[in-house]
Amino acid sequence: MKPSLPQGTRDFGAETVRKRNYIFNTIKNVFELYGFQPLETPAMENLETLMGKYGEEGDKLIFKILNNGLDNPSKHEQAKVDFEKVMEGKNVKGITERALRYDLTIPFARYVAMNHGQLSFPFKRYQMQPVWRADRPQKGRYREFYQCDADVVGSNSLLNEVELANIYATVFKQLGIDIEIRINNRKILAALAEICGGADKLTDITVAIDKLDKIGLDKVKEELLQRGLNDKQVSIIEKYLSIDGSNDEKLLQLKTLITENAIGQKGIEELEFIYNFCNQQQSITNLQFDFTLARGLNYYTGTIFEIKALNVQMGSIGGGGRYDDLTGLFDVPNLPGVGISFGVDRIYDVMEELKLFPAEVQTGTQVLFFNLGEAECKKAFGLIQQLRSKGIKCEIYHEQSKFDKQFKYAEKKNIQYAVIIGSKELEENTCVIKDLKKGEQQIIKQEMIEQFEF
Amino acid sequence: MKPSLPQGTRDFGAETVRKRNYIFNTIKNVFELYGFQPLETPAMENLETLMGKYGEEGDKLIFKILNNGLDNPSKHEQAKVDFEKVMEGKNVKGITERALRYDLTIPFARYVAMNHGQLSFPFKRYQMQPVWRADRPQKGRYREFYQCDADVVGSNSLLNEVELANIYATVFKQLGIDIEIRINNRKILAALAEICGGADKLTDITVAIDKLDKIGLDKVKEELLQRGLNDKQVSIIEKYLSIDGSNDEKLLQLKTLITENAIGQKGIEELEFIYNFCNQQQSITNLQFDFTLARGLNYYTGTIFEIKALNVQMGSIGGGGRYDDLTGLFDVPNLPGVGISFGVDRIYDVMEELKLFPAEVQTGTQVLFFNLGEAECKKAFGLIQQLRSKGIKCEIYHEQSKFDKQFKYAEKKNIQYAVIIGSKELEENTCVIKDLKKGEQQIIKQEMIEQFEF
Repeated sequence: MKPSLPQGTRDFGAETVRKRNYIFNTIKNVFELYGFQPLETPAMENLETLMGKYGEEGDKLIFKILNNGLDNPSKHEQAKVDFEKVMEGKNVKGITERALRYDLTIPFARYVAMNHGQLSFPFKRYQMQPVWRADRPQKGRYREFYQCDADVVGSNSLLNEVELANIYATVFKQLGIDIEIRINNRKILAALAEICGGADKLTDITVAIDKLDKIGLDKVKEELLQRGLNDKQVSIIEKYLSIDGSNDEKLLQLKTLITENAIGQKGIEELEFIYNFCNQQQSITNLQFDFTLARGLNYYTGTIFEIKALNVQMGSIGGGGRYDDLTGLFDVPNLPGVGISFGVDRIYDVMEELKLFPAEVQTGTQVLFFNLGEAECKKAFGLIQQLRSKGIKCEIYHEQSKFDKQFKYAEKKNIQYAVIIGSKELEENTCVIKDLKKGEQQIIKQEMIEQFEF
Repeated sequence: MKPSLPQGTRDFGAETVRKRNYIFNTIKNVFELYGFQPLETPAMENLETLMGKYGEEGDKLIFKILNNGLDNPSKHEQAKVDFEKVMEGKNVKGITERALRYDLTIPFARYVAMNHGQLSFPFKRYQMQPVWRADRPQKGRYREFYQCDADVVGSNSLLNEVELANIYATVFKQLGIDIEIRINNRKILAALAEICGGADKLTDITVAIDKLDKIGLDKVKEELLQRGLNDKQVSIIEKYLSIDGSNDEKLLQLKTLITENAIGQKGIEELEFIYNFCNQQQSITNLQFDFTLARGLNYYTGTIFEIKALNVQMGSIGGGGRYDDLTGLFDVPNLPGVGISFGVDRIYDVMEELKLFPAEVQTGTQVLFFNLGEAECKKAFGLIQQLRSKGIKCEIYHEQSKFDKQFKYAEKKNIQYAVIIGSKELEENTCVIKDLKKGEQQIIKQEMIEQFEF
């Protein structure tokens, strides 16, 4: 049988794992510098925990797990009835009661709801785990991919937004990626909706604006008209979308447009607080107001973030925002929060394109000891253990064989040094150290090997 | 809705994640010191990759994923027919074509088979990922748990066994767990089978011997009789199982029992090679011959290992062995190998029981800056960023509030230092640093904070 991988999934070989871990570790270290604590939840959740949380389209993309034991004859009658319901699009416990997590937010909400009595708030957690979606696979879209989230819950303070913006700035500085932190506030969009015909227009407006990058202004206007807005309202939105200039200039234009609207004022205040705080601290110089930013997810209620990589063609490589109510769906009300997310697959692609991975990331085995006979091998093994106890990554070639073969192995595994102990060296208590990158070699006493600078 | 976790799964909070990562990182670093390279495979495999690889019992424990789109009316007729077959215990692509991995060995074999043209052999990989089994949950047995494997494939050399035994010794020394590395060889068991009525008895004998620890000698003898061995054969096996003493004494007794059996001689030679190599190097002092060791899995053909923790009641915390043919099932023949595995959940339990986790493992946030007003907060924020850039994990309390509340937050999060900047300190450019563990405090100039030893 010729094996294959399921569509939309990937194996990661050593080089890729190391590069990915470089990204994960950078993010993790910064999360911890800011006082966030790790959380891990299981891959499977009860189906009822997940269903109904991601909209109708999202629900369809959840991978459900078939119950075990359906081949038990005593269950057949019921299973047949249950399966009929599954075909009607219902979820029936007799067929499936578990599913793979679709994101990290709902499992996090479930965890907080189950443990809120024991947690101390504000609760700051980060989580880096894979999620699964039955999306149609295409370039850059996978059915298994990692999410990488940090959230603070149990706090309304805008200081959290300042901290999260600083996390973004620090991580991308460490990774060497130039970015812009785009920021907006859902309250400003809410105000726009109120001005353009009422609060019930908010979803119509955000959904349409969200597509601006992809489809352009004319198509957005078309869509707004189709969604029932009139010409005057569309022209206000057009004016809103055309706000331009420096941050201060943009703010001025916005204030003129959204005047005397209470929720709009609140949104502007929040935005200004974050902007001024970051400005005064000079910790962030790349915060950009972007009033065209909407972010599709409907649960955001305040600040929204999106990260754009500069010098490269790529969609957003991070995003997040503030929400009023994380756990209400799980019967624990009044837990507001704010969170951010890193798009690791896209960050990986950006770093590949801009050649940003440091060479050290790829350090696998550093030294290969040649195997040239039984006694030679035993001598080499003693030395190799000395180097390993000093933290140097070494291998000994698995069997006695020709020089050629052993050199080839070193070359293929990208090992820089070969240590050679043949019969002559065995007798003289020496070893030959070859630097395969530089093409140099030297002979040293075996007892000096720990002092050698590999 | 009150949320809950699926049976047999676990959330890991910060403390547990840190302890688990301490174990994972220790193992990972040693794997890398020995030249093993990381591999990650997807959680899902095609169902046909997994089915039939784990025996009839194993197959039943595989979690299968329900295909998406079964609510598409055009598929109903076929789906009904297909579901009938599922209830007969068959796997039908129309209902399920993917499943969660059950171990790391088959995905590894699948990876090697798919990529063998690109890999350089011997190929040494390690893999640390969760696996899923629909086992009945009970104490210490979970439906999602991590496996932690290292394998060398494409080599018959016993040097690999020596290296793997050294990996065990190094990892457990670093973790502080006293262990015995128990070692046997399947060829010796094969010889025993040949002596006791023929090679076809091997499975009967290994399955029965495997239970020795659990059910005792008398029951093992009973089972052997039930499995069709006669009294004389059972008495040979009894003699075999009663081999005792030092390693050298055991070897002598074994040689008397298994005399002139070719495969037995080979097994003894292999065992002696490993034993002598380790002895001469003095790198391993805790290798123990254990001829009662069988290891249930049938694909082992040579050396078998098992790790027993001393000073604690616990089943084996690691095991592995040599196999002749990793990828034959996937049409790539002649790839022998040897691998070991670490039982992370049990290692965790041993370390908890013996209190072996170092205190540093639990270092979360080190410093909490108090929030005592707008200007005070901004000053604190400037200082906090200085400390973070030095790698110190800090937080600032999210909002202005009473001392009491901020102290309580520090206490609950186990934060050692509080830095307090009130109006007085703001004016004098100082800050109060409280060591909450020692109950001491001192006042320093703000510009000196980077020099302070937190």
